[in-house]
Amino acid sequence: MHGVGLGPGAQDLLSVRADKLVRGARHVAYFRKEGRAGRARRIVDGMLRADAVELPLEYPVTTEIPLGDPRYNMALSAFYADSIARLRAVVEAGEDVVVLCEGDPFFYGSFMHLYTRLQGVAPVCVVPGITGMSGAWTVSGTPITWGDDMLTVLMATLPEEELARRIRATDALVVMKVGRNLPKLCRAVAAAGREDEAWLVEYATMPEQKVTRLRDADKATPYFSILLIHGQGRRP
Amino acid sequence: MHGVGLGPGAQDLLSVRADKLVRGARHVAYFRKEGRAGRARRIVDGMLRADAVELPLEYPVTTEIPLGDPRYNMALSAFYADSIARLRAVVEAGEDVVVLCEGDPFFYGSFMHLYTRLQGVAPVCVVPGITGMSGAWTVSGTPITWGDDMLTVLMATLPEEELARRIRATDALVVMKVGRNLPKLCRAVAAAGREDEAWLVEYATMPEQKVTRLRDADKATPYFSILLIHGQGRRP
Repeated sequence: MHGVGLGPGAQDLLSVRADKLVRGARHVAYFRKEGRAGRARRIVDGMLRADAVELPLEYPVTTEIPLGDPRYNMALSAFYADSIARLRAVVEAGEDVVVLCEGDPFFYGSFMHLYTRLQGVAPVCVVPGITGMSGAWTVSGTPITWGDDMLTVLMATLPEEELARRIRATDALVVMKVGRNLPKLCRAVAAAGREDEAWLVEYATMPEQKVTRLRDADKATPYFSILLIHGQGRRP
Repeated sequence: MHGVGLGPGAQDLLSVRADKLVRGARHVAYFRKEGRAGRARRIVDGMLRADAVELPLEYPVTTEIPLGDPRYNMALSAFYADSIARLRAVVEAGEDVVVLCEGDPFFYGSFMHLYTRLQGVAPVCVVPGITGMSGAWTVSGTPITWGDDMLTVLMATLPEEELARRIRATDALVVMKVGRNLPKLCRAVAAAGREDEAWLVEYATMPEQKVTRLRDADKATPYFSILLIHGQGRRP
């Protein structure tokens, strides 16, 4: 089995290794929300073999149940167990499956929940990818870290006070999973006194790409939006 | 001009876009230390056009003068000014130059010093790459961040007390530029009480690749080694 990082969104930002695996795959699995195309699947549009068998793995729940609710964990556990059973059936028939992962497979994301459950079941090869945050800072047109800069990566799902404290204490900053957490995140950035440094990047490297100063951003932003504060470290 | 991320080291981990630019380039520039092949140049061995013109940009100094010494900054400033003059001459003759960057061009590294100096001189297109740290955590065989994990990226050049404080306060950790800072970094990891969680990764994705528990690591490690502590965040 392969867990393949697809990078931030543009098709030619797949690695040469990932590109070969995706184009050659007979079985292709990917996560998606019911009724949606799926972000990973969209990246490889037009790249799959005509006879590729697709295994969409559909989340039973995303934001309908709060993360802290035990029903959230139960629903997700059952979903991953079922996904493993489906992948295992293909692997035990002697076939390879390529699992599509947006960004980098070991950097947040859902693939890791399959990966750990497959230890001892089937060998899994992981292909790293360009992270969504690399895509974001590249299209922002400004380097993210210089010299000894410290970089902090936070999820916008954290509590507001913790966000503010961490944002105050870092040189460079990346915040992921922004979406509906945007108002809370804006308050945390303001509390940290860093409103003037913050940028919001949507759909980096894709046709809909948008880079905005946080203070000029719309009130609504997609889940995959990324907030950046660029480091100002040592530069001769 | 192009600043092209080459990724962590394996040739097939270049993006499809980077691969095309490198193979098609008539002029190829890269940093290296005098008398060395240069890490970026080594990654593309065998990929360049037979008639490619190479512009090695040789650091006048790397670790011979301490970072804090004003002579360090002066030597580097003069070096970047000279590098810009050389690149500019090629661009003004109407030719494109591909600048090779290990990892991702906007994530630490030397390319950014050219990039900022070229603003208003020549348009520069940047191609993101798979970071060295993605290469490191992939070959470590364990995901780096889960759920709401916070990730901190530090340079081992920071003071010991600051390293210890930051290492104590994070979920997941990446430390870069390890090299001769290894003894100090080991003390900082110990002071933070996290010796049992730390891994040292050398030459990730390359033939000499090595993954060791920090406590079992040799006393000497290359400059580009990466220290990792994997996050333990939420997993259903």
